[in-house]
Amino acid sequence: MDAAEFRRRGREMVDFVADYLENIEQRPVYPDLEPGYLRSLIPTEAPLEPENYEDIIKDVERVIMPGVTHWHSPYFFAYFPAASSYPAMLADMLCGAIGCIGFSWAASPACTELETVMLDWLGKMLQLPEHFIAGTHGHGGGVIQGTASEATLMSLLAARCKAIRRVHASIPENSEADILSKLVAYTSEQAHSSVERAALIGGVMMRKVPTDNSYAVRGDMLKKIVEEDKAAGLIPFYFCATLGTTPSCAFDHITELGPLCNEENMWMHIDAAYAGSAFICPEFRPLLNGVEFADSFNFNPHKWLLVNFDCSAMWVKKRADIIGAFKMEPLYLKHENQESGLVTDYRHWQIPLGRRFRSLKMWFVFRLYGLKGLQAHIRKQVDLAKEFESLVRADKRFEICAEVIMGLVCFRLKGSNELNQNLLKRITESREIHLVPCQLSGRFVLRFAICARSTESRHIQQAWRHITQLTFELLQEPNH
Amino acid sequence: MDAAEFRRRGREMVDFVADYLENIEQRPVYPDLEPGYLRSLIPTEAPLEPENYEDIIKDVERVIMPGVTHWHSPYFFAYFPAASSYPAMLADMLCGAIGCIGFSWAASPACTELETVMLDWLGKMLQLPEHFIAGTHGHGGGVIQGTASEATLMSLLAARCKAIRRVHASIPENSEADILSKLVAYTSEQAHSSVERAALIGGVMMRKVPTDNSYAVRGDMLKKIVEEDKAAGLIPFYFCATLGTTPSCAFDHITELGPLCNEENMWMHIDAAYAGSAFICPEFRPLLNGVEFADSFNFNPHKWLLVNFDCSAMWVKKRADIIGAFKMEPLYLKHENQESGLVTDYRHWQIPLGRRFRSLKMWFVFRLYGLKGLQAHIRKQVDLAKEFESLVRADKRFEICAEVIMGLVCFRLKGSNELNQNLLKRITESREIHLVPCQLSGRFVLRFAICARSTESRHIQQAWRHITQLTFELLQEPNH
Repeated sequence: MDAAEFRRRGREMVDFVADYLENIEQRPVYPDLEPGYLRSLIPTEAPLEPENYEDIIKDVERVIMPGVTHWHSPYFFAYFPAASSYPAMLADMLCGAIGCIGFSWAASPACTELETVMLDWLGKMLQLPEHFIAGTHGHGGGVIQGTASEATLMSLLAARCKAIRRVHASIPENSEADILSKLVAYTSEQAHSSVERAALIGGVMMRKVPTDNSYAVRGDMLKKIVEEDKAAGLIPFYFCATLGTTPSCAFDHITELGPLCNEENMWMHIDAAYAGSAFICPEFRPLLNGVEFADSFNFNPHKWLLVNFDCSAMWVKKRADIIGAFKMEPLYLKHENQESGLVTDYRHWQIPLGRRFRSLKMWFVFRLYGLKGLQAHIRKQVDLAKEFESLVRADKRFEICAEVIMGLVCFRLKGSNELNQNLLKRITESREIHLVPCQLSGRFVLRFAICARSTESRHIQQAWRHITQLTFELLQEPNH
Repeated sequence: MDAAEFRRRGREMVDFVADYLENIEQRPVYPDLEPGYLRSLIPTEAPLEPENYEDIIKDVERVIMPGVTHWHSPYFFAYFPAASSYPAMLADMLCGAIGCIGFSWAASPACTELETVMLDWLGKMLQLPEHFIAGTHGHGGGVIQGTASEATLMSLLAARCKAIRRVHASIPENSEADILSKLVAYTSEQAHSSVERAALIGGVMMRKVPTDNSYAVRGDMLKKIVEEDKAAGLIPFYFCATLGTTPSCAFDHITELGPLCNEENMWMHIDAAYAGSAFICPEFRPLLNGVEFADSFNFNPHKWLLVNFDCSAMWVKKRADIIGAFKMEPLYLKHENQESGLVTDYRHWQIPLGRRFRSLKMWFVFRLYGLKGLQAHIRKQVDLAKEFESLVRADKRFEICAEVIMGLVCFRLKGSNELNQNLLKRITESREIHLVPCQLSGRFVLRFAICARSTESRHIQQAWRHITQLTFELLQEPNH
């Protein structure tokens, strides 16, 4: 395919994309097929000779679309949102064309520098403490990670390295292996599975801290476990707080937890993967109070801030902490500007070496929406969640299972877990809306998350009509 | 921005992309600016109100382009290639529109299933042993990782888990921490820095194996170190072989190393990040002989197979090995088809949770080029490297420093390292072509890698004229 054909096919693809998104609600939100459906629809081997473009585009409808869970359908209420906006898609086209691999400053200075400044812009939108902003006299700065899982892992590894060095310096006869075997990390029992996984990867123990009846960790709960562990000869070194847990969007009390972590020389990382975007609104910013105690902070603009996946924003208080854990300098990656204080080689901040020019997406989105446009998006989705909450509360057969603070509503039918499992099964099989469950205090709960940018009040009303219709049918059955 | 405006701006962006790539060789390949250039060119904060699209596009030329290292310029010969093709860019547009996050089968079945089948297609192009192909009776399969660094890390973590379980089962009184402290991994002294980094992350020792005079690891070299380490009470558990090293594109002798690893119960991972793409050509496939002994194999279609970054293909012999190391199942990620043998939940195969629909890029590229088109691309680039090698060999002032097997030529001026450093400095500062150095046997060497898809013989000839002109000037100076 030459440039002339790309111009033609590219225009067609732009229209294909616009058509897809404009008409998405006419598609069943969740696919109706059995595992393994795709293999029989396409050849078992790649073709020897080039095929026609038209045949491939036909196959997108024939092979791909029937197997897509439509995350951008206004009837998609599962998991958490995956951000999508036209400005981000345009920026991604540019990113693909430039196609630089920005592992170091020299590999493409604009890629590194725009990223640093965009993380500053975003940090300022969130009113992060100055020490997290790169363009100040502080020692911190921001980076785009692929996912929150990677941000958590990087923070845990940096904390591990720092703790081993600190303990080894004070008790030199302790070997690195000895110290490693005594390190213990903490997180909420409600934290995302990726936090526990980070500890597994890092080869350190992780203890789950119990939560209060709002599913949040309080200072005294962490303090108690830390004291027990210290008495048992362990070395507490890391706590991952969650602002906006995956099951119920609960908020750990970081104003209590932060000072404790600082006193105990424990790295505090804050994972606000979903909820973090909302902190650009003054009315939600108080939930981030306490971030000044954190060593690192992360949230996903690719969830709720209209920047398409992947774009997970992470800030560290001290760049040296995260870089120091992994810095390696083979000759083929050295460049002459490396020793300047202005240069950031982001490969030291992350697991992969290569990286795309992802800050272009942030730049386009921030400028084409403006802060006010982004705030309006957050507020609209929170309002839609409140609207759904009101519908649930008005129906005595149902209960709300956790405070609705942002765009997530946890609810269930009053009654057994089995009853709720049956309801969800019917919802899933109907394919009109899509939800996933969670478990709260041993109870099977339905999660209703406002996801698509195109979700409006009419979709919420329709979703509720659908849920109550299925509920009616379920409760009519003799075995209930 | 609504769909109507996206249709208009999208068309403009398609043209912008085509114009950029058609005229790229008129731009200086390497930027002429100082670190920190960008911050002063844009505001210090995001705008409150939305801006005009035209202003943003103007800023792409004003702010971004002057700071771009143009990886797709035909005068870019640095690092290794970053793949770029129009079919991959079209597929990426579609990927952005669908915007699903494919962490599990249910999160978008097509995303998971196309990936499995595309990795089978690619595995068959490479004539991988049947046990790596998912659509057979074997226990293996393929996955797209973001980068080779992640593939290496995943293989090392899977090997670590397997080794700890095995040793613990045979000597139950050994604690996990004890075992971990005795595990030792190996790789070539020429291996990429990400391999050593994987060991750092995994908290295990890594020893560098010396290479022969072709910069390749031989079986007896590894055997000697393994024997020494076993005698010292250590537990060898992992070897990362490299096919096509970063400094000189050397090939470890896996037909010797594989049987040794199998005998010693060591996981053998093969990192063929760059060179792997060439194995789709029968004349290069013998370099992959021995892969049948490997537990995992990885290469980057995003380097040399025309699939835009990121797309790193990894295969494992036993899916259970890689999944077993990390499987976690919170309720919100469970789905009803999970227990079927046909379902792959790729989140267990990788570090991140989220993942884009990257197999679309492979599907478009494989079908629009066909196997023959892909082979032609590889062969053309190898021929260009040979052409450059001939030019170097014909000039008695220069020497070739490593056998030219694929698209990389390592060369230097006969003389001191300082002389070659000076030559490279002049090349970098001229900004007409872009190269990076490496170190081979203590010597400072220039790497000339054929990178851009648009590189032709005339660019090679021009690059050589330019190098010899700078050499002439350098050698004229009195201090030489």
